[in-house]
Amino acid sequence: MSTYINMDTLRFILFDVMGAEKMLELPRFQEFDKESINFLLDAVKDFSDKDLYPAFREMDEDPARYEDGKIIVHPVIEKLMKQTAELGLIGGGFDFEHGGMQMPAMVLQAANFIMEAANNNVPGYPGLTAGSAHLIATFGTEELTQTYVPRMMTGEWAGTMCLTEPQAGSSLSDVTTSASPTEEGHYMIKGQKIFISGGDHEYSENFVHLVLARIDGAPAGTKGISLFVVPKHRPTADGGLEFNDVVTAGDFQKMGQRGYCTTHLMFGSDDNSRGWLVGEPHRGLKYMFQMMNEARIAVGRGGVSVATAAYHASLQYAHERAQGRRINNDGSKNVSADQNLIIEHPDVRRMLLKQKAISEGALSLIFQASLYHDLTSGNEGAEKEKNHLLLEMLTPVAKTYPSEKGKESVDAGLQVLGGYGFCSEYILQQYYRDIRIMSIYEGTTGIQSMDLLGRKIPLGGGKGLKLLQADIQASIEAAMAYDELKPYAKVLIEKLGIVQKVLGFLMPFAMKGEHERYLSDATLFMDLFGTIIVAWQWLKMATTAKQALVSGATTFTADFYQSKIHTMRFFYKYELGEVDSLANTLMHPDVLTILGEEEIIV
Amino acid sequence: MSTYINMDTLRFILFDVMGAEKMLELPRFQEFDKESINFLLDAVKDFSDKDLYPAFREMDEDPARYEDGKIIVHPVIEKLMKQTAELGLIGGGFDFEHGGMQMPAMVLQAANFIMEAANNNVPGYPGLTAGSAHLIATFGTEELTQTYVPRMMTGEWAGTMCLTEPQAGSSLSDVTTSASPTEEGHYMIKGQKIFISGGDHEYSENFVHLVLARIDGAPAGTKGISLFVVPKHRPTADGGLEFNDVVTAGDFQKMGQRGYCTTHLMFGSDDNSRGWLVGEPHRGLKYMFQMMNEARIAVGRGGVSVATAAYHASLQYAHERAQGRRINNDGSKNVSADQNLIIEHPDVRRMLLKQKAISEGALSLIFQASLYHDLTSGNEGAEKEKNHLLLEMLTPVAKTYPSEKGKESVDAGLQVLGGYGFCSEYILQQYYRDIRIMSIYEGTTGIQSMDLLGRKIPLGGGKGLKLLQADIQASIEAAMAYDELKPYAKVLIEKLGIVQKVLGFLMPFAMKGEHERYLSDATLFMDLFGTIIVAWQWLKMATTAKQALVSGATTFTADFYQSKIHTMRFFYKYELGEVDSLANTLMHPDVLTILGEEEIIV
Repeated sequence: MSTYINMDTLRFILFDVMGAEKMLELPRFQEFDKESINFLLDAVKDFSDKDLYPAFREMDEDPARYEDGKIIVHPVIEKLMKQTAELGLIGGGFDFEHGGMQMPAMVLQAANFIMEAANNNVPGYPGLTAGSAHLIATFGTEELTQTYVPRMMTGEWAGTMCLTEPQAGSSLSDVTTSASPTEEGHYMIKGQKIFISGGDHEYSENFVHLVLARIDGAPAGTKGISLFVVPKHRPTADGGLEFNDVVTAGDFQKMGQRGYCTTHLMFGSDDNSRGWLVGEPHRGLKYMFQMMNEARIAVGRGGVSVATAAYHASLQYAHERAQGRRINNDGSKNVSADQNLIIEHPDVRRMLLKQKAISEGALSLIFQASLYHDLTSGNEGAEKEKNHLLLEMLTPVAKTYPSEKGKESVDAGLQVLGGYGFCSEYILQQYYRDIRIMSIYEGTTGIQSMDLLGRKIPLGGGKGLKLLQADIQASIEAAMAYDELKPYAKVLIEKLGIVQKVLGFLMPFAMKGEHERYLSDATLFMDLFGTIIVAWQWLKMATTAKQALVSGATTFTADFYQSKIHTMRFFYKYELGEVDSLANTLMHPDVLTILGEEEIIV
Repeated sequence: MSTYINMDTLRFILFDVMGAEKMLELPRFQEFDKESINFLLDAVKDFSDKDLYPAFREMDEDPARYEDGKIIVHPVIEKLMKQTAELGLIGGGFDFEHGGMQMPAMVLQAANFIMEAANNNVPGYPGLTAGSAHLIATFGTEELTQTYVPRMMTGEWAGTMCLTEPQAGSSLSDVTTSASPTEEGHYMIKGQKIFISGGDHEYSENFVHLVLARIDGAPAGTKGISLFVVPKHRPTADGGLEFNDVVTAGDFQKMGQRGYCTTHLMFGSDDNSRGWLVGEPHRGLKYMFQMMNEARIAVGRGGVSVATAAYHASLQYAHERAQGRRINNDGSKNVSADQNLIIEHPDVRRMLLKQKAISEGALSLIFQASLYHDLTSGNEGAEKEKNHLLLEMLTPVAKTYPSEKGKESVDAGLQVLGGYGFCSEYILQQYYRDIRIMSIYEGTTGIQSMDLLGRKIPLGGGKGLKLLQADIQASIEAAMAYDELKPYAKVLIEKLGIVQKVLGFLMPFAMKGEHERYLSDATLFMDLFGTIIVAWQWLKMATTAKQALVSGATTFTADFYQSKIHTMRFFYKYELGEVDSLANTLMHPDVLTILGEEEIIV
């Protein structure tokens, strides 16, 4: 059986780097302690080993598909929905009052990370169910909540989010699905939604779609969008179900994640699809953002998961495959000696360390965001507000860095295998195809980058950024205590200065009203900012490892701790260095991508 | 019908930037002029439009495969072999004495580029036939040449190159296929070869394999490797064919280029496979390098071709797809207006310009290498030697830059389509999968990079590099004549200085005998060097365009010329900028990828 994850690294980040135990002292999380969390994670790992990983290749080779009006998915989905529900991974994060366990986000992320590294086709099914149930519980009426949430928490009913329409992908302003009020207090829904993940299959009794639509006469744009619960089958007064005119019209076959069905849904083709309003009219997008923000971090985690599994597959190959010989000091090679294992070649080591640096750095970023999540939900008042702001700052980065750099990381991993990496017989090509969707899901990298530079950086007059810098500063000070880490801490200070310099260059454009110019290279700013944020994570990891080594801690081996420090150094040499060039490009005087009077792309 | 290429750009680079007409004045190429070349290219384009492009998706969906002991390929291959032979694309480059037309390499590249942009599954079939026939004609006996080459030039017989074995991928030292001399003067061949492109199918009557093998008792390593012609069927005295014990044992299913068969061949399973030595014993690798060097540039061209086709597919989509709205100067968007075409969004323009900058820059690089090739074969003495050195310098770069950056370019192109880019219904995902092989074929990027830094940079005591710098200097001086281009010419001077600085840092390691250290970041040096070489190509293109604008030339439109200058500026801002960070990493004091006493990747 292949290794797809290092549980020690997961626990190191969770408990040692992020200090989950301290967070667990908050009253909200009183039911959890390190032991119960480790117990849960072991159970999830066991399930992932036995059921999810073995189905991974099959789901790619025999993909989810639309046949005779039905969506066919792999039978493991049946077990998945039951098992995740039993383990508390669907409703476990909800409040006690909604039947939940108030499970910390960090724990949910850790559990999903394990499952997703084993098989990235699957966590979306229970994940979207959890997200949509949470949305109903948070913003829906008591009746809506009682009707839907309990059956979703058991995995009997599945949930989806329905945003995109053929003419409205990234542009939600242009959603045209309509909702006409009836005298009974509900709405008649009509329209079509595309790219609906997990939208239909035979292993859930019912599907509860969270649909963005416009109430008749609603204002144009995003301010006229409302949110509805539109079940595939609506519950009847006698406790039964009747068909609610939600038809699966087809599916989308994809390059990767082929086991995760992507459906095309038609609502109200026979004018008989009822929807129930969630919250107030015209505020649907605001509510949906709760789910979208959760989903964004989940997509980032998806990137980490695939990159992690790919890293372990490449690492295993490099430990087993002999090929070529190291160069002697006179420049020759001893051809009569045995071939070396490829892990002994510097270029292969560079690629593996790149995979490790990106995947573990991105994992730490996901947990940093989840820690802010828990410190938001577990606190009140100023502390809650502060952590919420920090979470908002990190969300687009936590979505984008693992997606974009994870892709580069898997690319390096495929290259480690040479020609075999391109062959279907080996798993790297599947990871390579799978991870490509992550920078598109839930708002493309371009959208996330405009969110970061256009909304999050100016948030609260720059307060979010200041709070984040304060947290980074605290990590820098902790690192400064060790001579070995001091030079890297200083580099991080210098790079933070570069962020300020770039913003100092860009901000005047926004102030002059040149918004398009201000945002035109937002994607590059995201690259720069995300890389610095992950450099911060690596400094935290290295400091934690150094502290353990100095104190003689034996939770993990000395080699394990040393490797974290080594990989931090790798990240600072090979990854963080890119920031300087990005800054130069961002401050370059040429403006070349804004449409002028003439169309000059030929 | 989709556009997959811009013929104007091809002709601009060929004739205006590279000055093909001047090269055609060499005696070797007296049969060719601009008109005859354009006539040929139009014929190739017509064939590509009508036959190759329409088969492109089919070949992916219904891939080449091994079934019942046979390799099944798309029927277009039959037409392809005939048509390319008739157009002179198999043997056209050979000397008159070998029945060729002495067609310039630049013309062959241009023709193959068109076919390959239309359908990158196909040019390998005639391409390998041409390369192996050329190898026999150059180094084989008159008898071998007469026996094989004429039938290969007609496309009746196909050729392959057989290097890789299961235990010897990148490490040719470890080839174990054996060749035992017989009393009749030939050899009995025994062994297996894997990853043999175009190794077998029903549309060629015979396959002529060029096989690396060891004669019994040969020295270890690459100095004991000889080259053999091993046909699938050997010609008999009466002009017939008899089976030569070359069996196709299976194939490799791949992530991309699925229409291009990749076979596993067994030689001499029944001890009845005869091989004929090419040239002298133990010098096989030297001969094979002729074909490998040609194949390397062909792979680079493959990268360019896929990147070019992907660019045109993305460009077309961006011109047709409306989505979202531009930002007003007050930061708002007018939601009641029609949606904008996505080509109007800066981030989409940035991605498209990235595709254009990389694909056209890389195309120019391929023609620069081909120009050196023609100036080598068309000259004698010092001029020949000089251009050969220049070709040697550029070969690893021409193989690697288009493969690696082409991959990034297609990645950007897929992103332009958002969710649709990931769907099988759209073509971008196919290009994305196809191009991934280019950085593996014919020596991975790591191998090419060690070739560049370890062999080519020190070539002739640095003479190759000096010659290349002189050519770049001449382009810089030409650009300096125009105020608009002067700043960019100066940037290129500065970046050339960075190359010197990096080499000044690295060279002492080689001199101290620390070869592994010297080469450890060769891949980064390749990235740096290749980017600068392509920046040179863009300066040449911009200068040519500027000259045309100033002189009022009307070969192409003013918009066309302006777009070349614009894209040069884009390249200098967004691509060339990366060089600074790469240089810093290359000169970073931390040594992190060389195996020490302890294994620290965990």
